[in-house]
Amino acid sequence: MDIKKGIIDGDRIALAKLITMAEDGKKEAMDIIKELYHRTGNAYLIGITGPPGVGKSTLTAKLARAYSGLGKKIGIIACDPTSPYTGGAILGDRIRMQELFTDPNIFIRSMGSRGHLGGLSRGTRVAVRIMDIFGMDYIFIETVGVGQSEVEIADTADTTIMVLAPGLGDDIQAMKAGIMEIGDIFVVNKADREGAEKTAREIDTMLDFNEKSTWRPKVIMTVAQDNKGINDVLHAIEEHMKYIKDSGIFASKRKEHIKEEILELATQNIMSEIMTGLSKEELLGIVDKVAKREIDPYSASIDIIKPIKGGIQK
Amino acid sequence: MDIKKGIIDGDRIALAKLITMAEDGKKEAMDIIKELYHRTGNAYLIGITGPPGVGKSTLTAKLARAYSGLGKKIGIIACDPTSPYTGGAILGDRIRMQELFTDPNIFIRSMGSRGHLGGLSRGTRVAVRIMDIFGMDYIFIETVGVGQSEVEIADTADTTIMVLAPGLGDDIQAMKAGIMEIGDIFVVNKADREGAEKTAREIDTMLDFNEKSTWRPKVIMTVAQDNKGINDVLHAIEEHMKYIKDSGIFASKRKEHIKEEILELATQNIMSEIMTGLSKEELLGIVDKVAKREIDPYSASIDIIKPIKGGIQK
Repeated sequence: MDIKKGIIDGDRIALAKLITMAEDGKKEAMDIIKELYHRTGNAYLIGITGPPGVGKSTLTAKLARAYSGLGKKIGIIACDPTSPYTGGAILGDRIRMQELFTDPNIFIRSMGSRGHLGGLSRGTRVAVRIMDIFGMDYIFIETVGVGQSEVEIADTADTTIMVLAPGLGDDIQAMKAGIMEIGDIFVVNKADREGAEKTAREIDTMLDFNEKSTWRPKVIMTVAQDNKGINDVLHAIEEHMKYIKDSGIFASKRKEHIKEEILELATQNIMSEIMTGLSKEELLGIVDKVAKREIDPYSASIDIIKPIKGGIQK
Repeated sequence: MDIKKGIIDGDRIALAKLITMAEDGKKEAMDIIKELYHRTGNAYLIGITGPPGVGKSTLTAKLARAYSGLGKKIGIIACDPTSPYTGGAILGDRIRMQELFTDPNIFIRSMGSRGHLGGLSRGTRVAVRIMDIFGMDYIFIETVGVGQSEVEIADTADTTIMVLAPGLGDDIQAMKAGIMEIGDIFVVNKADREGAEKTAREIDTMLDFNEKSTWRPKVIMTVAQDNKGINDVLHAIEEHMKYIKDSGIFASKRKEHIKEEILELATQNIMSEIMTGLSKEELLGIVDKVAKREIDPYSASIDIIKPIKGGIQK
């Protein structure tokens, strides 16, 4: 099949294939992305993160359905190993998600353990780009975790939604300090449970101490499963979008990402040049020397890039 | 003060200072590490990971104290934002940790949000190296999370301990698939709580399905707070250490890390060469072109390394 034509024509099978090819690092995929790069820049990226069990997937599903109802096209990238999309969760969840898979406006991509092990940035970035080329209006990136992945998602997404739930106990309490800096919107899901208002109030209080930004994050209570509060979240997203676009944050962040990407790609290119120029035996020889503590790794790294340094100084 | 001499003499203040200097990327620190690199290679790295609230810090504290009682020197690196060392947890925890800070055999380093944002690998790796130079016999690396950080710790550590607790509900259930591949030793802490044996049995059953390794992970029940089961964990660590050393896994993993590090350092060096050779205006100009979709980032990355590629082909 002609993948490039398929992408332009809005064929979802072509979309799925191109993402897989790109993940596998196929040159053909990169060529298509290069040729269609001019179509990017329209998708708005929404990060959904939070600890396991708070209902991130259900919330994502309902938000996607709400946007679909407005005629928008939505991509969902699930980097969450506990997500029902990736097969991590219990059967009931997966059945509830069925409606997403039959919605022609919604395309779901699970990054599985591949995206997991390779880091959020790389696999997710290429999937985001391809979905952007395809013409998605909104792309949701769902990750789980209380660590690196949350920070990365906040850096990648235009709007980051931190999902919490009542009754998670002291853990949330302990995590709060780190969490507070990440969310643009806070959702207390499962708000029909005891303690929801208390949780929301606590988050609100914590946010009062964060004066790093002129944006004051919203705290919204939802019962995603019953579709309650979904529109409030949707409005908060639109409001935050307006804020970052009006303030210039959106444009400067996008440029920063482009810069990072160019430099990262450049480094990858040079690195593969080095690896091509270096025989396996040479590299193993250097590693052995370091392992025997004859030289240190810093000096070793300078040794292997010597041919390039000559080139730069010209 | 003469930091290098202090490190050789076993001065803990010099140790703390050198880690800070290295974290700040000070050239002086890197020079000392280079000069003392030959002293590395003796420390054994133990990763402690698991979801928040299972008692990782208490377990780490008790294990460290047990090793200290055997005359061993121990370093603890806490990359866990919820850890009492990093100030995330409740006061009671922190008081319980006091005994660690007064033990002359134990040195604790919290990576705080710095280690967090910079990724596990970099900040932690330099702290590990310096503690290794200093003469630590065991270095504990404590991380929280259900994501990238767990995978990274399993890759960095010689022995990885996955800590769980009963009563964490479905979340643990959902996380299990990913978790099972990470631990060399499984600890069910807070084993005086209801459901501990069931949790241990479930983990044990899951492990039966994992046939990737000839090492069958142990499942150990502990009540770390009451010092129960600590010696069992200690024995399991020693047993796993013997296994990886006898099987050659230890040596080959260490060599793999050295290779990765050399290549990573080389990449960093190249990146800074690129940045040096390129004026800020040139870079911004290229970024602007990509932002306007006049060129794609892949082509842009090739453009900026052209002068360097000339050097390679010579």
